[in-house]
Amino acid sequence: MDFPLTLQAILRRAATIHPQREIATRRSDASWHRYTVADMARRAKCLSLALARLGVGPGDRVATMCCNHYRHLEAYFGVPAAGFVLHTLNFRLHADDLVHVINEAQDKVLLVDECLLGVLDSFRERVRLEHVVVVGGDDSISQAEYAAADTLDYETMLAGVAAEDFQWVDLDENQAAAMCYSSGTSGRPKGVVYSHRALTLHTIVAGLSTGFAISEHDCVLPVVPMFHVNCWGIPYTAALVGAKMVFPGTCIEPVSLLEAFEQERVTITAGVPTIWFGLLDALDADPGKYDLSALHTLLVGGAAVPESMLRAFEERHNLRLVHAWGMTETAPMGTISHLRHGQPTEPNEQHYALRARQGTPVPLIEIRVRRDGRLIPWDGESMGELEIRGPWVAKEYYHAMDKTDRPNDDRFTDDGWLRTGDVVSIDPVGSMKIEDRVKDLIKSGGEWISSVDLENFLMAHAGVAEAAVIAKPHAKWNERPLAIVVRRHGQSLTEDELREHLKPRVASWWIPDDFEFVESLPKTAVGKFDKKKLREQFVHGGILKSNNDN
Amino acid sequence: MDFPLTLQAILRRAATIHPQREIATRRSDASWHRYTVADMARRAKCLSLALARLGVGPGDRVATMCCNHYRHLEAYFGVPAAGFVLHTLNFRLHADDLVHVINEAQDKVLLVDECLLGVLDSFRERVRLEHVVVVGGDDSISQAEYAAADTLDYETMLAGVAAEDFQWVDLDENQAAAMCYSSGTSGRPKGVVYSHRALTLHTIVAGLSTGFAISEHDCVLPVVPMFHVNCWGIPYTAALVGAKMVFPGTCIEPVSLLEAFEQERVTITAGVPTIWFGLLDALDADPGKYDLSALHTLLVGGAAVPESMLRAFEERHNLRLVHAWGMTETAPMGTISHLRHGQPTEPNEQHYALRARQGTPVPLIEIRVRRDGRLIPWDGESMGELEIRGPWVAKEYYHAMDKTDRPNDDRFTDDGWLRTGDVVSIDPVGSMKIEDRVKDLIKSGGEWISSVDLENFLMAHAGVAEAAVIAKPHAKWNERPLAIVVRRHGQSLTEDELREHLKPRVASWWIPDDFEFVESLPKTAVGKFDKKKLREQFVHGGILKSNNDN
Repeated sequence: MDFPLTLQAILRRAATIHPQREIATRRSDASWHRYTVADMARRAKCLSLALARLGVGPGDRVATMCCNHYRHLEAYFGVPAAGFVLHTLNFRLHADDLVHVINEAQDKVLLVDECLLGVLDSFRERVRLEHVVVVGGDDSISQAEYAAADTLDYETMLAGVAAEDFQWVDLDENQAAAMCYSSGTSGRPKGVVYSHRALTLHTIVAGLSTGFAISEHDCVLPVVPMFHVNCWGIPYTAALVGAKMVFPGTCIEPVSLLEAFEQERVTITAGVPTIWFGLLDALDADPGKYDLSALHTLLVGGAAVPESMLRAFEERHNLRLVHAWGMTETAPMGTISHLRHGQPTEPNEQHYALRARQGTPVPLIEIRVRRDGRLIPWDGESMGELEIRGPWVAKEYYHAMDKTDRPNDDRFTDDGWLRTGDVVSIDPVGSMKIEDRVKDLIKSGGEWISSVDLENFLMAHAGVAEAAVIAKPHAKWNERPLAIVVRRHGQSLTEDELREHLKPRVASWWIPDDFEFVESLPKTAVGKFDKKKLREQFVHGGILKSNNDN
Repeated sequence: MDFPLTLQAILRRAATIHPQREIATRRSDASWHRYTVADMARRAKCLSLALARLGVGPGDRVATMCCNHYRHLEAYFGVPAAGFVLHTLNFRLHADDLVHVINEAQDKVLLVDECLLGVLDSFRERVRLEHVVVVGGDDSISQAEYAAADTLDYETMLAGVAAEDFQWVDLDENQAAAMCYSSGTSGRPKGVVYSHRALTLHTIVAGLSTGFAISEHDCVLPVVPMFHVNCWGIPYTAALVGAKMVFPGTCIEPVSLLEAFEQERVTITAGVPTIWFGLLDALDADPGKYDLSALHTLLVGGAAVPESMLRAFEERHNLRLVHAWGMTETAPMGTISHLRHGQPTEPNEQHYALRARQGTPVPLIEIRVRRDGRLIPWDGESMGELEIRGPWVAKEYYHAMDKTDRPNDDRFTDDGWLRTGDVVSIDPVGSMKIEDRVKDLIKSGGEWISSVDLENFLMAHAGVAEAAVIAKPHAKWNERPLAIVVRRHGQSLTEDELREHLKPRVASWWIPDDFEFVESLPKTAVGKFDKKKLREQFVHGGILKSNNDN
């Protein structure tokens, strides 16, 4: 039984069991590029060979700065299949951060979309890359502009090798397959390395009905960027089970997505709440325009989803959001909120409240909650910091050569659990609810106020588009909540109306002392409210420090 | 990410995520014993502690000779959770074989059902067991008869310890969790050891839609004995995903099973074809009597299923058999025949022909076909011997102390694949069809005739209850097929009618030269046709030898 758990096995399975399954990518002109899993596997092997020819060796990092398309998928398989390490870059990061992560990871080769060459230009001279490979837009072979600038062309490179020459090399399941950097709201991005074993197990568990529930009969369109924590593992799971894959390319505005869902009969899609907020507006603007009858699941994660959003999709458009939770450090699948046995299927209060929770850990993931070092009972009320372990949970952050400079190793407990920084409660059947981030909690008079709960209650008000709540220092209570609110278009809305709205929903001492109305809220590179920026703007420097303990 | 894959993780998950899920066991008076997963987990921990107190240590074998009931389930978890090895005994084996396997495995403790004490009596003096623990019938504490004979009582033993004292010990995922002996049709039973890793991966993959597709919303009743290759892994998968479990106890005759399916709203059941043949008769005798509307899947494996049986269940009773294939050496899940993407869902010829195949390897299982050392293409026609590998495929048979006496190590190729002894073809999307056992193939004039195909065609005749085909030596053709047929009750049936029936279905040279009509066919301990006995009966000694090359 010496069969290692590697992405090679996933690629071999896809190519032999599902060779004719389609992979479709939207071109920038809205037409479709289509090919099969067999084509993908062949080209992934060619990529392995071409990279080896460039001098990439076992364990070397190959970075990508690409949108969601079939060539990026080829890198998802072709890079790790040869024993190289796929490093997906978040091209929305600040150039300083990109320079940091590329140099720390010691990326040897960069695959970059032609349409993102401008981003590369902004830091090209500050990074040590041996080769830059330009991935042409659409189907074109685009060598023109960059040929002079010492770059290679992806298609030309693949044309120079023959898939038949590919040999399966023996890999250790514990060797690195991929890496990502977390884009926290504070500090430098921190690198997490994923082993073949970790990603393979993640891939399988994601296929379970208690995971993302993807089957051969599904058609999956990940809106979540392929640089965002392995695209939540969706491409690997789709390949394993034989689901059709659809990639949006650069066409990710709401109407384009709706067209893609309809045209390709997409059954499962996935993205952060920001995406679905936009989609909801587009659906509301023209209800019933698109035939989305095939679409049974919209996976949503990366930030908490307000219950009102679940309701809006379901009641207005008969679409089901499924709430999931994870982190860069958890590869990312941690918990998911499917309805459990015996829970109400009819859409009542309890039903939505249950589904708005972050949900139950997926198989092989274990969670516990501690406060002041003591375990907290799973009674649905007691709060503490979530700790997590499992075969795809990081046990450390990546640190290059300098072993003395280990970032945030206090995030890992002595007995091997990851401290998530999330304040949660867990109910008696293991369903977790994030009450807040440890650093975003408002500590008022020795008690905790959840900024997330307040935000969700505020955003449930018809006049509120978005709302963020942060702590404001207070002489007597230590901290008090401050709400920063974006009004819905054309709505007038007063502080008093919001107070009245909150009164029946939260304890009186939770109601914010102050409200600020703004035009928009700053977001992080992955679409979460940027509370660091909000604190900089609304709370003064000296106080900021004490709130920003991560 | 140092999280080992062990059955401990499955038990912990069941106890924390699905604590209130029900486990029901039929008592011999047809009433039900009911308790929860939390109860089971608590008692499994007590079993661990009680065995340790008996002197059982890490790696020691604990044998069971039990029917399918909740206490057997406690052993499924309690034995491996403490680092001991669960050895499930097939109590239908000959006493000589039981003596061999108990002594070779060096079982230290035997848990035996009170109703099987007679079996134990037949060989008790020939085995070296340190302790015999009697598992009482139903809920009773039954110490009476055997107390004198130096045995322990299961309930008394559990009552002597407290679950709170249980401590999780660190296990290596590669250490043994369980073992089974294969009951081949020839030679001594051969032992296979399953590691924690192997069973844990099997457990997860069995939950996939491309596996046994068990979810939290299912209610599973395994008819397959719990001694038969880990009960196909079903108890472990049910515990992992939170499906309700129903055990038939000693009530396994067809009418009792139908009652259980109806009363407990069973959704998935599993067993060998012999069981379903019996069930079909009971259904035919009184169609529509039972409300089986919840039952969506009858898993069938352990022997090939004739297409006619799939049709009979579906067309006459709206019940779906799902054909799976595996071996003791594959833990056992190997392939399964779900309808694939794009295949016809309407019940036409092609639909049934596809579903009657053994099907597609489940994720992480890889197959290949060789003939005379060369790989055979996946064209749906070319035949050769099936070879298999994967994380739960054995790489050797168990050999106790004497390392020189390794049984059948020629079953494993130099590059690590298991030679299955099955002659198969594979279609272009990886669906496998067993044409025959290597040793049962009829080699006629340099060509191969599949005894299995002939048997299935014969059993599709309305007048045939069962049919087996074996090779008969022939001076000119080397071998020719001989059919041994059991007529359906009250049916007259002639050799000529069967020849006419076969004519449009097979090549003329496949049609058996001889037919024998018998009252019944001999079966092996797991319900397969015993071709060894048939050869002894219908073919003479000298010839038998050349046919029995395993």
